[in-house]
Amino acid sequence: MRSCLFVLLIFLHSSCFAQTDDSIVLAHFFETALSKDKAYSDLHDLCKQCGARLSGSEGAAKAVVLTQKILNTMGLDSVWLQEVMVPHWVRGARESASIIYPSANPQFKSNIAIVHVCALGGSIATPSAGLTAQVIEVKGLGQLAKMNPADIKGKIVFYNEPFDQSFKETFNAYSKAVAQRWGGAMEAARYGAVGVVVRSMAQHVDEWPHTGVMGYNDSIVKISAVAISTKDADQLSEALKEKKNLMFHFETSCQKLPDAQSYNVIGEIKGTEFPNEVIVVGGHLDSWDLAEGAQDDGAGVVQSIEVLRLFRSLSIKPKRTIRVVAFMNEENGGKGGAKYAAWAKQNGEKHLAAIESDAGGFTPRGFSMVVSDSLRALIKQRWKPLMDKFEIGSLDNDGAGSDVEHLEGICTLLAELHPDSQRYFDFHHTGRDTWENVNDRELEMGAAAMASFVYLIDKYGL
Amino acid sequence: MRSCLFVLLIFLHSSCFAQTDDSIVLAHFFETALSKDKAYSDLHDLCKQCGARLSGSEGAAKAVVLTQKILNTMGLDSVWLQEVMVPHWVRGARESASIIYPSANPQFKSNIAIVHVCALGGSIATPSAGLTAQVIEVKGLGQLAKMNPADIKGKIVFYNEPFDQSFKETFNAYSKAVAQRWGGAMEAARYGAVGVVVRSMAQHVDEWPHTGVMGYNDSIVKISAVAISTKDADQLSEALKEKKNLMFHFETSCQKLPDAQSYNVIGEIKGTEFPNEVIVVGGHLDSWDLAEGAQDDGAGVVQSIEVLRLFRSLSIKPKRTIRVVAFMNEENGGKGGAKYAAWAKQNGEKHLAAIESDAGGFTPRGFSMVVSDSLRALIKQRWKPLMDKFEIGSLDNDGAGSDVEHLEGICTLLAELHPDSQRYFDFHHTGRDTWENVNDRELEMGAAAMASFVYLIDKYGL
Repeated sequence: MRSCLFVLLIFLHSSCFAQTDDSIVLAHFFETALSKDKAYSDLHDLCKQCGARLSGSEGAAKAVVLTQKILNTMGLDSVWLQEVMVPHWVRGARESASIIYPSANPQFKSNIAIVHVCALGGSIATPSAGLTAQVIEVKGLGQLAKMNPADIKGKIVFYNEPFDQSFKETFNAYSKAVAQRWGGAMEAARYGAVGVVVRSMAQHVDEWPHTGVMGYNDSIVKISAVAISTKDADQLSEALKEKKNLMFHFETSCQKLPDAQSYNVIGEIKGTEFPNEVIVVGGHLDSWDLAEGAQDDGAGVVQSIEVLRLFRSLSIKPKRTIRVVAFMNEENGGKGGAKYAAWAKQNGEKHLAAIESDAGGFTPRGFSMVVSDSLRALIKQRWKPLMDKFEIGSLDNDGAGSDVEHLEGICTLLAELHPDSQRYFDFHHTGRDTWENVNDRELEMGAAAMASFVYLIDKYGL
Repeated sequence: MRSCLFVLLIFLHSSCFAQTDDSIVLAHFFETALSKDKAYSDLHDLCKQCGARLSGSEGAAKAVVLTQKILNTMGLDSVWLQEVMVPHWVRGARESASIIYPSANPQFKSNIAIVHVCALGGSIATPSAGLTAQVIEVKGLGQLAKMNPADIKGKIVFYNEPFDQSFKETFNAYSKAVAQRWGGAMEAARYGAVGVVVRSMAQHVDEWPHTGVMGYNDSIVKISAVAISTKDADQLSEALKEKKNLMFHFETSCQKLPDAQSYNVIGEIKGTEFPNEVIVVGGHLDSWDLAEGAQDDGAGVVQSIEVLRLFRSLSIKPKRTIRVVAFMNEENGGKGGAKYAAWAKQNGEKHLAAIESDAGGFTPRGFSMVVSDSLRALIKQRWKPLMDKFEIGSLDNDGAGSDVEHLEGICTLLAELHPDSQRYFDFHHTGRDTWENVNDRELEMGAAAMASFVYLIDKYGL
């Protein structure tokens, strides 16, 4: 009995010591990230030197060069580019829309009300004179499916399903509403619609249209699609209550060019004990083309870089290989994520964990995971008390970033930084997604949270 | 053994059922608050109909009337005003300052650089021509105490201790830096200084001066005090590196008027089982005078009102009395909090818990508490798993709002809503503290968090 007690006391002592020890390291991550502010400075350079970074664009090419340059200054063990062919869609110069009232509207002193729209990513252009047709409103794909096809034929379909405000997590509201953006054009075209206008994927009512990827079905005729700002969507909906056979006009000049050569940018610190076990941190380097892609996903890229910088600056030598991957083409193709996973598979690399940051540079709450129930329970049991001290212990959500999800099957833990989501959809895919709209401290704390999780996984394994 | 097992199973079953049941109620709080958005609408009215609400002002008087009016629409069991005499300090019309360079500075094409200042609350005015004197910089009270008094005499002391960025919680940075604001004038006057300029209590570098209360010591001569924006503080500090005997000028016309009659505004839902046990929720109705006091602390007032509205709208009949108190005069005197506590004491009321919201309307993380270790441990053991589901399970921080702290000794649990603190000091006590700078969803979630904690305390006791 005495020896059992002795062993137990030793165990408790070393366990407490390890917790205290780990707590000090995590505190250092937060203090260092917050006081040095390097990720925020990297984000400035990425946003201001490269600008928008849609796959195939000049900005994306500049971002590859800049990211490689940053990684090269950090004393990593290797830095390299991984070739990947990416889709190349361009918006073009013309993009406008208006509601056409049957007679002059006193508010506008005209029968035309200009509204804020942007082409959805991947859309074909309208004819050069634009599209003009009667517009009909539906609340989403479900409502469209219940309509009489004769009422859709020849019309512009206006999808106006708003975000469900009752969800605490805004990403759940996004998931519920986004089907109309992705599938709206193909479903409407199936019934003979000539174009679609989709309510922006936004939490609030404002004048900013939100772009984002949409899909076509090769067996159905392709029609043009634009997103309309939430404020204008409300106006259009109001106008339709007054006048059922309202006309709408929009024109776009976007086009798909041949696929372009691009790159994932990769750097790593080799593990001291298990160099063949890899822990990936990453974000995506490409962005939509309306602004600087600061929250989506410059933030994720610079936070991931910061993880390795924090290890280096605190002289922590990881047992496993810690690798940062700046993925290309998450927004409209996912080619970078797929390429990385295929390469890792081919190399027979053992991936222990892959943690993406692609939900904005807001205050971290924890990590969402794609993981077995038993491993989630183990992670919570071992580390939640410590992570709770830093308010990053929310570990119950499902999901991982779409780039790292390509690693499913060859990676033990797929995860994503889970930041506060309340303001994300004020910026996502809009002209407002600029460096100025990222809070330096929130961003840095996200990097420290990622470093903390990586540190624990590296030290104790999974 | 079998009967023990049976009892255990029954216990586990009822315990699980209670958890599930409670989880549904908490989910309803969040969904209702987020979808109805009533607190945000109340905050709009408070900010836009009353404006700034410094104790004794017309805005504060309007806020008393409006708050009572809102409570009267909610079907509460009682609504009343509680008289309280409050200090009445006014800013006056003149408020300006400048750095006086020895010769024309090329940047300003003059030897004068205008800087952004505001009088600190409670300060005396400068002479009508203002104060002009050599300015010396210190990093805080500690550095002042080490100086040769002869170097201070006749000077304007510039306190320039910045926020420590390495703290994760910005309130800790505030606590560390704020001594120079409160005690700066009396300490400098002790050594013969003629005025003080204090770096604004802010996380970021910008042009907004932050006011806030400062103190005098009746045995030391009173000198005028202003806060300077962080951007201008940096400029002044830079200028002092170039030129040690730089002059500074400022003028203010603030004054203290006779104490004024004001009120706490109170409403309650009477408990069905233990009507004499009270749970208080509250915020402070007064604000500083530079803007609308939206984050500080209109948010806390409307969130506290929303707690009672959520109980009513979900038809939850509390066992204990749930009381909302909109405290007057937190900012420069704390008379409302003191008055309420004295009244409660006199009535021999049993206060089970008092939860203030006075840290801004940002996404809730949990609650800070002034409580015994054993009660904190019990609260965490019983409710943290449930609260974690709603990401409001951070329960380790110390502290309660300064209004409810007057209840110490007659209240079992003193607590404060603990929201994310990263953006608070961008607004606190500045001209930027307006309704537009409050996020509706973050505000509403704070109200739901308070309702959740109140619900659990009411249902299970402490």
